Amino acid sequence: MPPPPQRHDAPPASSVVPRQGAIKTPVETPSLLRRYVEVRSFSETLCEPLALEDYVVQTMPEVSPTKWHLAHTTWFFETFVLARALEGYEPFHPAYNYLFNSYYEAAGDRHARDRRGVLSRPTVEEVIEYRYHVNRAMAALLSGSAPPGRLAPLVDVIVLGLHHEQQHQELMLTDLKHVLASNPLRPAYRADAGPPEGAKAPPLVWHERAEGLAAVGAGEGGFSFDNERPRHRVFLESFELASRPVTAGEYLEFIRDGGYDRPELWLSDGWAARKRFDWQAPLYWEREGDLVRQMTLGGLRPLCHAEPVCHISYYEADAFARWYGARLPTECEWEAFAERAPAHEGNYVDAGHLHPEPAKRMSSPGPLQLFGDVWEWTASPYAPYPGFRPLEGALGEYNGKFMCNQMVLRGGSCLTPRGHVRASYRNFFPPEARWQMSGLRLAR
Amino acid sequence: MPPPPQRHDAPPASSVVPRQGAIKTPVETPSLLRRYVEVRSFSETLCEPLALEDYVVQTMPEVSPTKWHLAHTTWFFETFVLARALEGYEPFHPAYNYLFNSYYEAAGDRHARDRRGVLSRPTVEEVIEYRYHVNRAMAALLSGSAPPGRLAPLVDVIVLGLHHEQQHQELMLTDLKHVLASNPLRPAYRADAGPPEGAKAPPLVWHERAEGLAAVGAGEGGFSFDNERPRHRVFLESFELASRPVTAGEYLEFIRDGGYDRPELWLSDGWAARKRFDWQAPLYWEREGDLVRQMTLGGLRPLCHAEPVCHISYYEADAFARWYGARLPTECEWEAFAERAPAHEGNYVDAGHLHPEPAKRMSSPGPLQLFGDVWEWTASPYAPYPGFRPLEGALGEYNGKFMCNQMVLRGGSCLTPRGHVRASYRNFFPPEARWQMSGLRLAR
Amino acid sequence: MPPPPQRHDAPPASSVVPRQGAIKTPVETPSLLRRYVEVRSFSETLCEPLALEDYVVQTMPEVSPTKWHLAHTTWFFETFVLARALEGYEPFHPAYNYLFNSYYEAAGDRHARDRRGVLSRPTVEEVIEYRYHVNRAMAALLSGSAPPGRLAPLVDVIVLGLHHEQQHQELMLTDLKHVLASNPLRPAYRADAGPPEGAKAPPLVWHERAEGLAAVGAGEGGFSFDNERPRHRVFLESFELASRPVTAGEYLEFIRDGGYDRPELWLSDGWAARKRFDWQAPLYWEREGDLVRQMTLGGLRPLCHAEPVCHISYYEADAFARWYGARLPTECEWEAFAERAPAHEGNYVDAGHLHPEPAKRMSSPGPLQLFGDVWEWTASPYAPYPGFRPLEGALGEYNGKFMCNQMVLRGGSCLTPRGHVRASYRNFFPPEARWQMSGLRLAR
Amino acid sequence: MPPPPQRHDAPPASSVVPRQGAIKTPVETPSLLRRYVEVRSFSETLCEPLALEDYVVQTMPEVSPTKWHLAHTTWFFETFVLARALEGYEPFHPAYNYLFNSYYEAAGDRHARDRRGVLSRPTVEEVIEYRYHVNRAMAALLSGSAPPGRLAPLVDVIVLGLHHEQQHQELMLTDLKHVLASNPLRPAYRADAGPPEGAKAPPLVWHERAEGLAAVGAGEGGFSFDNERPRHRVFLESFELASRPVTAGEYLEFIRDGGYDRPELWLSDGWAARKRFDWQAPLYWEREGDLVRQMTLGGLRPLCHAEPVCHISYYEADAFARWYGARLPTECEWEAFAERAPAHEGNYVDAGHLHPEPAKRMSSPGPLQLFGDVWEWTASPYAPYPGFRPLEGALGEYNGKFMCNQMVLRGGSCLTPRGHVRASYRNFFPPEARWQMSGLRLAR
Repeated sequence: MPPPPQRHDAPPASSVVPRQGAIKTPVETPSLLRRYVEVRSFSETLCEPLALEDYVVQTMPEVSPTKWHLAHTTWFFETFVLARALEGYEPFHPAYNYLFNSYYEAAGDRHARDRRGVLSRPTVEEVIEYRYHVNRAMAALLSGSAPPGRLAPLVDVIVLGLHHEQQHQELMLTDLKHVLASNPLRPAYRADAGPPEGAKAPPLVWHERAEGLAAVGAGEGGFSFDNERPRHRVFLESFELASRPVTAGEYLEFIRDGGYDRPELWLSDGWAARKRFDWQAPLYWEREGDLVRQMTLGGLRPLCHAEPVCHISYYEADAFARWYGARLPTECEWEAFAERAPAHEGNYVDAGHLHPEPAKRMSSPGPLQLFGDVWEWTASPYAPYPGFRPLEGALGEYNGKFMCNQMVLRGGSCLTPRGHVRASYRNFFPPEARWQMSGLRLAR
Repeated sequence: MPPPPQRHDAPPASSVVPRQGAIKTPVETPSLLRRYVEVRSFSETLCEPLALEDYVVQTMPEVSPTKWHLAHTTWFFETFVLARALEGYEPFHPAYNYLFNSYYEAAGDRHARDRRGVLSRPTVEEVIEYRYHVNRAMAALLSGSAPPGRLAPLVDVIVLGLHHEQQHQELMLTDLKHVLASNPLRPAYRADAGPPEGAKAPPLVWHERAEGLAAVGAGEGGFSFDNERPRHRVFLESFELASRPVTAGEYLEFIRDGGYDRPELWLSDGWAARKRFDWQAPLYWEREGDLVRQMTLGGLRPLCHAEPVCHISYYEADAFARWYGARLPTECEWEAFAERAPAHEGNYVDAGHLHPEPAKRMSSPGPLQLFGDVWEWTASPYAPYPGFRPLEGALGEYNGKFMCNQMVLRGGSCLTPRGHVRASYRNFFPPEARWQMSGLRLAR
Repeated sequence: MPPPPQRHDAPPASSVVPRQGAIKTPVETPSLLRRYVEVRSFSETLCEPLALEDYVVQTMPEVSPTKWHLAHTTWFFETFVLARALEGYEPFHPAYNYLFNSYYEAAGDRHARDRRGVLSRPTVEEVIEYRYHVNRAMAALLSGSAPPGRLAPLVDVIVLGLHHEQQHQELMLTDLKHVLASNPLRPAYRADAGPPEGAKAPPLVWHERAEGLAAVGAGEGGFSFDNERPRHRVFLESFELASRPVTAGEYLEFIRDGGYDRPELWLSDGWAARKRFDWQAPLYWEREGDLVRQMTLGGLRPLCHAEPVCHISYYEADAFARWYGARLPTECEWEAFAERAPAHEGNYVDAGHLHPEPAKRMSSPGPLQLFGDVWEWTASPYAPYPGFRPLEGALGEYNGKFMCNQMVLRGGSCLTPRGHVRASYRNFFPPEARWQMSGLRLAR
Repeated sequence: MPPPPQRHDAPPASSVVPRQGAIKTPVETPSLLRRYVEVRSFSETLCEPLALEDYVVQTMPEVSPTKWHLAHTTWFFETFVLARALEGYEPFHPAYNYLFNSYYEAAGDRHARDRRGVLSRPTVEEVIEYRYHVNRAMAALLSGSAPPGRLAPLVDVIVLGLHHEQQHQELMLTDLKHVLASNPLRPAYRADAGPPEGAKAPPLVWHERAEGLAAVGAGEGGFSFDNERPRHRVFLESFELASRPVTAGEYLEFIRDGGYDRPELWLSDGWAARKRFDWQAPLYWEREGDLVRQMTLGGLRPLCHAEPVCHISYYEADAFARWYGARLPTECEWEAFAERAPAHEGNYVDAGHLHPEPAKRMSSPGPLQLFGDVWEWTASPYAPYPGFRPLEGALGEYNGKFMCNQMVLRGGSCLTPRGHVRASYRNFFPPEARWQMSGLRLAR
């Protein structure tokens, strides 16, 4: 019996996905092209630690395979930009509109969402080729190759496409986390030092706001999604907002006080979900006697009590708040405070922690960690603002048609690309969703 | 072969349920006892047209058998009043708390909601005996037999129990309608003359309200549920409200224009529901070629185009509004108009139509049919008002724990007991519910 | 507050269903009419202890409401006899073919089996009228009113219809048992003295049969179903058959030895069923500490160890046999012994026990209790005999189309009408069925 | 924008899986080692055409990912041979017993069957390493390294393990076929020339066998599974067996005659399955107007009418037979003819067609194509032979525990390894299974 053949190395990431600098931009590139290259190549950077097999699987209907994300974000540019900008543009593959349309009824029939994980083809390599093909066409378009007047009306769609890709970058990581955590081998996405030893969260204090009118929603300048508009007035009664998110240690108290066994703390649908799914703790927590460990993108590690609690459903956030004697803020209350906070600061994906960090005492007078770390469930059902108008055409399906049965989350997370969120940004998920980086902040 | 034995007559209603006057009230009865007798005996009056078998069956999980309603409303008084008011009160039957508790976690374990139709026992007769037993004890309590000081703190609960019974009176009829309509024999609850021939609805016009603060919710005096409180301020942008509900004829136009086949008109969850349940028209509509008939409590009869459309889900109401180029009002917008309308007028259950009626031109300056006829879906998810506090104890489960995944309906219907609704009244159902008397009114 | 009105008496059985003698047969009645009256009225006799509500409910898809059984057996005669025998026969009601056809594809569309319990109409009274209507027509037919030559070809179908009704008589009782046992009130069908105190089962001994050819199946004379034919030869290796069915006490030993927790004793599908349904004991056994009680048609009562175990699935019978170091007999092995046993003796429904009885030591040389008491699961999948020919037309659906995924049971039970079974009789149920009177006998 | 980086080549098959000759056997290798190397390396040979992604996905619960098959067959040798033969043998990975145990309750807990496709790790490369690791240990064991007396008792298990691996070789291909056919891109496993043009099947004629005793089952010499034993006698009535399997063209006639719309042709469970799954034709047939194409391992290609029909359920086979006026043979009838046929001839996997071929007229006096091409559904439920004894210990779960709710198929297919089947070989699948190479032959 001979020695086994040479190891088959998992394809080195560098051959599968170009490093961030791989798509070199020519001198004089217009800034939109530079932005395009930055955003698009970051999707590939995020794939570097993966084995090829990790691109393929789907662990639950809400999770999409990595290769699907890579292809779908590409399809977005092909369908909504290239096909409109370029006379006679031929799609890269005739079946890709069917395979990589997510939910746009106006863009035609599509592959079932919960069957994305049964597709071994196109291969990862073919998806990467698809990305390059579209990237080349986009680069040509953005470099001036388009007929005059063709590009201008599409600039807004291109910018939207880049924000869309950033949303999928966060989803790629939350979906991968679910894939890796579903595996009995508990593989890490990336080795990781873990949280600082002995970290302590600052005490929770309250920030008050007096009653009165507030302006809510995105104003003129700068990018915003249609669901953030129009800016409008709401009347807020006086209230207080907590200085930081609820920590894992505080949440552990809730558990130890029987929080998961006391129906009086829960919404009716929440209690039904808690029983149906047999929830005993946040997703990814694993308890062995008194020890709690949690699965992170850095692998399985002990729970850090000082960090914001994460991976809880709206129902759990709501039950915790009731147990605490407080409540969740509405999204307008949250925004009233966040408007004055610096959205560009915070623990975002580029910080590399890939996990919420304990709050740091700061001299800042306002609430901490409004941005980054964890998305914060609010008490607000996702609904249209007064005077809301969805985008025209198929892109009108981007946000508006989901305005039912979902709750609003605010502030971004440790997996959100820096620069992607703002005070008026409205994220939304069904109340039972737990695989996103969802935590909570209290109000009263 | 001899002639068959004498007909077995279905038990005459008068022996099953006492007529309205059967519980005679003594001279000098305090008004609460008089009210108690009135409300309680009306539940039995509603049963008069039934065959004994009609009391028993459950056609879907949301529908409860009539005898369950009769027992559950009785359990409410036994549990929340008698057991608290009377030292050593013995429940009528030790198993009834288990059988007839609807959803009160604090009141103990209970029979599964979707298994209410498998219980042949207790028999209808036994349930009626249960009602009489509790009625006698309540009558004694309300006539002064209780120890001093025991009654006073329970008066609010008794009043709540009567409003609770009225809610179940409407449910008894909507549930029975489902039972009868599910039967291939299409039996009528009560023979019925049907709508006036050639009725025409007045044209839809718009009533405007200028932007500004509005006060919303129940004020001090008079009964209200906890979910209507506290009264508080909201800022409303200017808007217009339609002068009457959408008619069946207008809804038919929506259908004929392909409304059920155009996903762009629907919310995402709505389109999924429309496909999952294969909705093609409102519940109870039956189409034969161009003819549309609908099942009513008076049996199967031709659709009257002038009457308000009914038995549609929130999703259908929302899709119709989008098709029309309008939207649904928020509950606050609705209430801003309804506050000035006379809630005691309207087509309620006592009118005996048991079906929505075409609007009548009136000299009144405001919108028509805000009260009675059909519950109107609003654009508002059911959520707590700022400062909301549920009742203490088990009764805190009455409303508060349902404040998620449901939409608010306003105004009462042709099956609502007169005097039960008011401008601040908030009904709520999941967005896919269709077996209630649910229609819509437009805003823009 | 006046006294309650007079008790509403549940309709006295005598008005709902005629006593056995109610359908008087004229002098000179041909024997088939006499038999018809006997069998048909026995269905009604079985209903005497019921409350009207008991006729209506359906506790699982396999259970049919009593009133459905009463109507379906009537529909059988109307459809397969009267409609063929009488020129221009008008069905009693145009919708009854739809409502009361069980599974005959050739007889047209039908109401869904698992929705029989949602039908409050026709009422029990109307069903009884339907029975009388058909009875009168059948009596006329059998008394000579039919045109010459019309009756003769239908005699076999009438006889089949009577055996069919007898099958439903057993089902009525097993279905009612499920209805009553599903009710937290645990009502009894009929008060009952219970088993004799201190009963002991005789020891289990083995009866041997030498290898050789055996003739199996129904021969010429006498009624038999198509699935019992043709009589044919099989080769049997030598084997031994147990002298009596397994007792409840023996089964208890199996449980106490961990029988329900040892997958090595179970078939793969059986172990899956045991886990899916969380089986811990036979259906209707209720354990409180060391005490075992069982729900019977006589109400809840202590387990009698000497009686044959009942209400077990094929999977449990098979696992018990493996635990015991034996196996189940094939149906041919069973029949080889039963052919010589007196089928007319045994604990059948007319004995009035309505429950299996402990075996009695007898001087008879062969196995005890082959007939009556409990149906015995065999190791034989239900399959056609060589040369099997189903009946012509719709009645060909009676047996043949079920010859897959079911196991054969033999011997009849304490709920089987006397005279209904014979040595070649093949009953069949899916292997997970437990609500029939199913026990087991060992072979090796 | 630079040119894209170098193509990422899918790992060349040669690095993932050794070619057939890669595991070189030393001079003087005992024949069992030679056989071990042959069989094991053929599993890898079958993987050569795959993309790495193809190893990972699971398209339905019954389908396992290729890498799971590769690991499970390895686990079999590790668990049942190495762990018993070698003192202190350390499993390759502590979690692999959990991940790659298929259904052996006695071997411990295991990963859910329907979740095999959510595992991206271990990677394919790691699974291949696992194979090599076990191969090296097995080679050492078979080369004489084991302590004296340790190998001898395990030789039967090793031989069983090789037959087990051959079974999984067929499953790998049928599962891959399902994976590729589920993909809208319809990729081929291997480019393929397709069937010979103008092929015609010889006419169907009948071969008769007179009534009498037959010996059935495996005799002494040669390998057989426990379920083929013991050899025993059965009595067969006279019957006729068709000279060849039913062809696709004959099956098309059944379809065109309304076979899928006539419930009278179907078993009750079969008709329910036909409606539940909306069967209109065999699996993998795609109809466009009059043209029928079918998905094969060679890709999508026109239907060849002369080839045996394949990918039908038992229910369809049974319905076809009824439509034809014939029936399926029992497994004993089939075996009575097959005992005299040459099992080593036939269209097996090594022929490379990977698809059933039209029958060729031969001078042979007996039925054609009894072996190879398509497995033939028989009328026999899978049940133990008289005197059946499963293997001892965990391996007793190999066959015996599945003897319920499955039907026997005989004869092997075009995907079966040559030398794997024999006249007494009993394959078995649930009656609704269609993804195996299942066809039918008629009897009467």
